[in-house]
Amino acid sequence: MAFEKVTREQDYSKWYNNLVVNADLAENSGVRGCMVIKPYGFAIWERMQRELDRMFKETGHENAYFPLFVPKSLFEAEEKNAEGFAKECAVVTHYRLKNNPDEEGKLMVDPEARLEEELVVRPTSEAIIWNTYKGWIQSYRDLPILVNQWANVVRWEMRTRLFLRTAEFLWQEGHTAHATKQEAIEETTQMLDVYAEFAENYMGIPVIKGVKTENERFAGADDTYCIEGLMQDGKALQMGTSHFLGQNFAKAFDVKYTTREGKQEYVWATSWGVSTRLMGALIMTHSDDEGLVLPPNLAPIQVVIVPIYKGEEQLEQIREKAETIQNELRAKGITVKFDDRDTHKPGWKFAEWELKGVPVRIAMGPRDLANGTVEVARRDTKEKEVLKLEDLGNKVEHLLTAIQDNLYLKAKTFRDDHITNVDTWDEFKDVLENKTGFVSAHWDGTGETEDKIKEETKATIRCIPFDQSKEEGKCVYSGKPSKGRVLFAKAY
Amino acid sequence: MAFEKVTREQDYSKWYNNLVVNADLAENSGVRGCMVIKPYGFAIWERMQRELDRMFKETGHENAYFPLFVPKSLFEAEEKNAEGFAKECAVVTHYRLKNNPDEEGKLMVDPEARLEEELVVRPTSEAIIWNTYKGWIQSYRDLPILVNQWANVVRWEMRTRLFLRTAEFLWQEGHTAHATKQEAIEETTQMLDVYAEFAENYMGIPVIKGVKTENERFAGADDTYCIEGLMQDGKALQMGTSHFLGQNFAKAFDVKYTTREGKQEYVWATSWGVSTRLMGALIMTHSDDEGLVLPPNLAPIQVVIVPIYKGEEQLEQIREKAETIQNELRAKGITVKFDDRDTHKPGWKFAEWELKGVPVRIAMGPRDLANGTVEVARRDTKEKEVLKLEDLGNKVEHLLTAIQDNLYLKAKTFRDDHITNVDTWDEFKDVLENKTGFVSAHWDGTGETEDKIKEETKATIRCIPFDQSKEEGKCVYSGKPSKGRVLFAKAY
Repeated sequence: MAFEKVTREQDYSKWYNNLVVNADLAENSGVRGCMVIKPYGFAIWERMQRELDRMFKETGHENAYFPLFVPKSLFEAEEKNAEGFAKECAVVTHYRLKNNPDEEGKLMVDPEARLEEELVVRPTSEAIIWNTYKGWIQSYRDLPILVNQWANVVRWEMRTRLFLRTAEFLWQEGHTAHATKQEAIEETTQMLDVYAEFAENYMGIPVIKGVKTENERFAGADDTYCIEGLMQDGKALQMGTSHFLGQNFAKAFDVKYTTREGKQEYVWATSWGVSTRLMGALIMTHSDDEGLVLPPNLAPIQVVIVPIYKGEEQLEQIREKAETIQNELRAKGITVKFDDRDTHKPGWKFAEWELKGVPVRIAMGPRDLANGTVEVARRDTKEKEVLKLEDLGNKVEHLLTAIQDNLYLKAKTFRDDHITNVDTWDEFKDVLENKTGFVSAHWDGTGETEDKIKEETKATIRCIPFDQSKEEGKCVYSGKPSKGRVLFAKAY
Repeated sequence: MAFEKVTREQDYSKWYNNLVVNADLAENSGVRGCMVIKPYGFAIWERMQRELDRMFKETGHENAYFPLFVPKSLFEAEEKNAEGFAKECAVVTHYRLKNNPDEEGKLMVDPEARLEEELVVRPTSEAIIWNTYKGWIQSYRDLPILVNQWANVVRWEMRTRLFLRTAEFLWQEGHTAHATKQEAIEETTQMLDVYAEFAENYMGIPVIKGVKTENERFAGADDTYCIEGLMQDGKALQMGTSHFLGQNFAKAFDVKYTTREGKQEYVWATSWGVSTRLMGALIMTHSDDEGLVLPPNLAPIQVVIVPIYKGEEQLEQIREKAETIQNELRAKGITVKFDDRDTHKPGWKFAEWELKGVPVRIAMGPRDLANGTVEVARRDTKEKEVLKLEDLGNKVEHLLTAIQDNLYLKAKTFRDDHITNVDTWDEFKDVLENKTGFVSAHWDGTGETEDKIKEETKATIRCIPFDQSKEEGKCVYSGKPSKGRVLFAKAY
């Protein structure tokens, strides 16, 4: 564990980066802005994928796979979408390298292998998918199409941060096609609910559901719904979006269907996605200065058993007991690791498993052997207790549930404490700067005001919450009339 | 089911392509050489992934994720590898599009957004991964590294065919690092065994394990092991490869470790992969003129129940019985679908599920209701029998096992019948042209002879089988001495 220790207090951003690297979650690669997701980090992502994939399938979706590349002519078909992503596109222009005649052993792009039409590396797949759906949809019988894709996408971001903003990232993107506007809106809502349920029940992160303002809307959408979480430094993080795309892509790609009545209508669309960004949210919501804190529902290792021993004989005695414990836990579907490495001392192991966020640590030494006990430590509160071996499986199972619940409650208390109603511009700036978190304030509904507030404070409107209460008021910035509060925050 | 019916006899290649498209497995996309994998096809691939992923994890491997892009300077570091892939690389040269001033609403590559160093879209990931491993490996304690990645890769093939050869394809690539040569060779062998087990037990395809000749070796490997299957048209298909990479990548990227004795040594490497090409093998091995035939172990739907009814009342009675059957089957882990669509007649449904390769079809009509029976049809042999409802779950379970076994045996009989020992050049050409399949013949061990045989017959050496018997002989082409037979075939 030889690395520079930085606390959240000292430098939140550095704390985050150190944690990601030191807990073996991810690291920067030899490619600008692209990360390597290391095995331990990927194991967490796999657990996220597994639960989300199950939830998608339970709501009737199937997976498919569409091309990585989007020909420029398809990419530009939906103009708003194209405009929104054009500035950050990786573009393939050639399909061959050749030996560089001027430099032995080096390669160069073969100028004779220029593509007739450039290919955009997908920043999102609406264009290529709607070009495909055109061939799949003729009649109302072909609808709805409920498809999801797990894929990599590329957006050439200038400033990148591990998991939070990388040039390449992994995500899932759902793309659905519907006969009616209402059905498409219901789908948009349903998938936002799936995301919220996942965030709260698996990630242990309370989220606010709402709709984005026009400024913050997905390029090509009629409406963007989102879930917003709050990180420990008081900044918001958009954790997932679900877009009602109207008939924009159907029109751009001329996708019509014959209704029951024999009329030709454009198809209605949604798309929705979450990405490896969720890893950043997970890390920043729960972790502490000792390292990662993982909710049990997503921890690749839920319980680690560390033996404390002198000599082989003692280790063997502990190993025997540990095996019983492991079997008991595994029978309950709990993942458990027995860390019998002889290369490191128990104290070092304790620190390592703390850094890696394992929810429950069980230590077993000679005294435990004699007494039929173990020491059980929980990662979230760092509380320890000595427990009898009897019925240990059930106790640990309950403890894991308690940790999952506690992480959520702790995050929810923090989040709820950081939603502040403000009614004056001074208060607005003060809360943003000092208390941080969400600022609930009246807004006049214009993009200009939104832009000016962003310019002066860096805060954006995170969403107009679905549960916004109708309340007349005056815009905190312009003083113009407003019909309800919206949530501002500085954000990742 | 309105499509042109072509039999294998008439045009094998067209039969294959029609089947892939009509059974909703995949289709060509708007991007040259790239396919769309449709939901039904992807569901089969997901089952392959699930089993392979489990087998990789059971043999100690973890998943991770490495960047899509390889900077040119890293790509060219291992010269043989670079040379092998340079001619088919998609290259990203720019990171932005801009509005085309000459054409309203159109975009163009922004010439000012040229990358300083071009990025190759990974055709395989040894280079980017070994550049990463350099940072992970200092001491023998850091070894072995046993990592796998599920990813998309791009190889700019000129002639493409759905699943078999596409510009972009999905695969897994294992990349391992070891302290000793022996350990790396054992890993190479172990993973080939995993592939063979998967091919035989899940895909129902018998495979020959062997080693590639130097001509056919992976660019950058010291040795390439492979599994080779035989398709119904008598052509071989390479289904998976496992490479012993020696110290080639360790040397190219300067990856050394400190041994227990304190010496600095280069690390030993393997890589191994299978791809969506396996879908092509699966389709071509078992399917018939009516469509896909799926082995139960990989079928997304193992059993379909089709009601034969007149009127709602009868349908309700059948539905009730069908629910009991479904529950019984699901309790055994069997996936079952009740096809109660009122838009199509039973005959149409029978044809559709045949086309889609569902292993077992259960039909239930009024007479069955009266007699407490169902009609059970197996897709592989097309045999039908009327079975009592009692104990139907067990009967269907056994039937699925029988189908899985039968498909394997049938394929094995065909394959075994198509390995022909030949000792003269005329016989060689005759068998290749007329009988087809593998030709087991003596070869003088030179690349020149291999090239000439390929030129004259299009046959390549598929492998030197691991179980090659030592037998003195004369090369079938050159007459020079040989120490054992190798397997030639025309191949996909």
